[in-house]
Amino acid sequence: MLDAPGLSLSKERFVVRYGLSAESRALALQMAESLCVEQTIEFPLDLIAAGPIREQVLGQVVDLEAVGDEEYVAGIAYAIETAGEELTQLLNVVFGNSGLKPGIVVEELKLPEAMLARYAGPRFGVEGLRRLVGAPGRPLLCTAIKPMGLSAQRLATMAKQMALGGVDLIKDDHGLVDQSFCPFDERVARVAEAVAEANAVTGHNTLYVANVTADATCRAARWQFARDHGAGALMLAPGLTGFDVLRQLAADEALDLPILAHPAWLGPSLERAGGGVAHGLLLGSLMRLAGADATIFPNYGGRFSFSPEQCRAIVAGCREPMGQLAPIFPVPAGGMRLDRVEELRAFYGDETMLLIGGDLHREGDLRRACARFVDLVS
Amino acid sequence: MLDAPGLSLSKERFVVRYGLSAESRALALQMAESLCVEQTIEFPLDLIAAGPIREQVLGQVVDLEAVGDEEYVAGIAYAIETAGEELTQLLNVVFGNSGLKPGIVVEELKLPEAMLARYAGPRFGVEGLRRLVGAPGRPLLCTAIKPMGLSAQRLATMAKQMALGGVDLIKDDHGLVDQSFCPFDERVARVAEAVAEANAVTGHNTLYVANVTADATCRAARWQFARDHGAGALMLAPGLTGFDVLRQLAADEALDLPILAHPAWLGPSLERAGGGVAHGLLLGSLMRLAGADATIFPNYGGRFSFSPEQCRAIVAGCREPMGQLAPIFPVPAGGMRLDRVEELRAFYGDETMLLIGGDLHREGDLRRACARFVDLVS
Repeated sequence: MLDAPGLSLSKERFVVRYGLSAESRALALQMAESLCVEQTIEFPLDLIAAGPIREQVLGQVVDLEAVGDEEYVAGIAYAIETAGEELTQLLNVVFGNSGLKPGIVVEELKLPEAMLARYAGPRFGVEGLRRLVGAPGRPLLCTAIKPMGLSAQRLATMAKQMALGGVDLIKDDHGLVDQSFCPFDERVARVAEAVAEANAVTGHNTLYVANVTADATCRAARWQFARDHGAGALMLAPGLTGFDVLRQLAADEALDLPILAHPAWLGPSLERAGGGVAHGLLLGSLMRLAGADATIFPNYGGRFSFSPEQCRAIVAGCREPMGQLAPIFPVPAGGMRLDRVEELRAFYGDETMLLIGGDLHREGDLRRACARFVDLVS
Repeated sequence: MLDAPGLSLSKERFVVRYGLSAESRALALQMAESLCVEQTIEFPLDLIAAGPIREQVLGQVVDLEAVGDEEYVAGIAYAIETAGEELTQLLNVVFGNSGLKPGIVVEELKLPEAMLARYAGPRFGVEGLRRLVGAPGRPLLCTAIKPMGLSAQRLATMAKQMALGGVDLIKDDHGLVDQSFCPFDERVARVAEAVAEANAVTGHNTLYVANVTADATCRAARWQFARDHGAGALMLAPGLTGFDVLRQLAADEALDLPILAHPAWLGPSLERAGGGVAHGLLLGSLMRLAGADATIFPNYGGRFSFSPEQCRAIVAGCREPMGQLAPIFPVPAGGMRLDRVEELRAFYGDETMLLIGGDLHREGDLRRACARFVDLVS
């Protein structure tokens, strides 16, 4: 029998809510109890003596509720020390191994103040980003330069027209990274310059959002280049880089730029068929915890398949109380059109960033199309 | 209409095979064609002029095959330039946005030599790792120190017994990272020392595998510490850190240690309900491409739910021809027992690493249990 007589952890715990598909309450409880083991000690429980490991390290089922036909939600509490100080390890405790089993959805993550305080969180949030672009009390408007294949110069010309049209943010399409036909340095320098020229004309502070998603070996150089060459914000896809990199970027005092999170590569992890990570957690509260100021996701009724309920859950993750962490912008996107702006504003409210890409190009004159977009929310 | 008259890419392409759930061949073709757009230009196709963007940047359907009832497989070819030089961007082109849509499974990734040559791949592979531990012609044997909650000193004592028993590798449990009750530096230094003491007795070269999964801010320091203090191999969970970090670690000449990849946090991304990333790709060939020398996954019939077919697909990803990249060890694990060793050896063959954790502790005497494990394959 194993024990650890000297072990003495704090009483602080974080709670994870898991949706469980099970044929009976007894089986759901069994699943919950096996989560407690799997996510912490990963060791035969009958070989652990009564004492500190069982009492302090092992996860504890704090509640178990039936929520539907053969559907349960279990709350499991973990000692905060199990997650160390790292976001990678927090995610590891939350769902590192049990995500490999069927019938389990991570629904919610409730961190105590003691843990939240370790996260710088969003540096700007809704209020900070509003102040930066000088747009109080209406949805912020974002568009994207694209498609992949255009040169940096062509994209810069495009961005200038968009900025002259008065949108608040102009982002790189997430497929624009550092390709031979459009190198990162050239694109970022030229587009930032073009947007600055337009800002000098309009008097606005339209932000150019540079996509700094990159391999670990070149990330720091890209971030610094973007900062030094006038990018007004950064975009990162934490599904590709790891959520800890979003946290690192948001905490970097030298960068001091707002961050838009992109959902690339996170799709397969999302809840489906009774398994995965709930939309509101993965694309809402986790993005905010890691430090995003805005989180892009596919709007319901576009070319993706999110439901209005899933979109609402993401919005809740952006806005609901979360310790000292500022609320952030939900950014519904994905095949949005100008003729849906009114509907989107009604659904999401004004603390929202609307992102329309391709549809603006249908209008022919990009500057005019962006101006129309602005008129629709003014 | 948009065009890019000067664009001239190589003719080199990589091919991704997608499983598509569709009610008819026509609908499957529609899905494949929309993948071509979504993963590259993400722009209304009717606004792109005939010319280089359509011909070179846009993905191309190269085949479409019915494989079952309302199931199709489409091969889509992408210009290698779309992925730049980065692994994050390769994954982005493969499934960045389309993973957010239902009914699509990424089955396979076929890279041309021009791309494979950019990947250092596994530094040791099957042959290199065998040479290192001096074990030709039989499965390698691995066990794990655990549970979370024990002190570094207790884990070191445990590791010494395991090494005296003669296993080839002793890894940190994936939940052991850098916690207050078992700090990384102390654990790694003590366990490496204990294993070295045992090696001096046995004459073997049992490797201590330090878990270096960590946040971006502390990763480099951990890697160096592990190397400097006698770790014989490293473990990384690329689901938590990003696959590019595995590539970075494998390419680091200064480290020069074998790497075991752990599947933590990758579970939700795996194929289920007609969506996700195929097991053989995510836990097999992608791990190998990124540079793992061995890839841990839940064996069929343990406490996880992988099927024998899924396990075989992972093995194929480890072993099938892949340019200059060496074959790597599949590491079936997850509630394995000594009484299944014979069956596992028959199923996986000898080019396999067997990982038994908790069950060895049932035997009472760890040294003797490890020696029995060794006897079973000798």
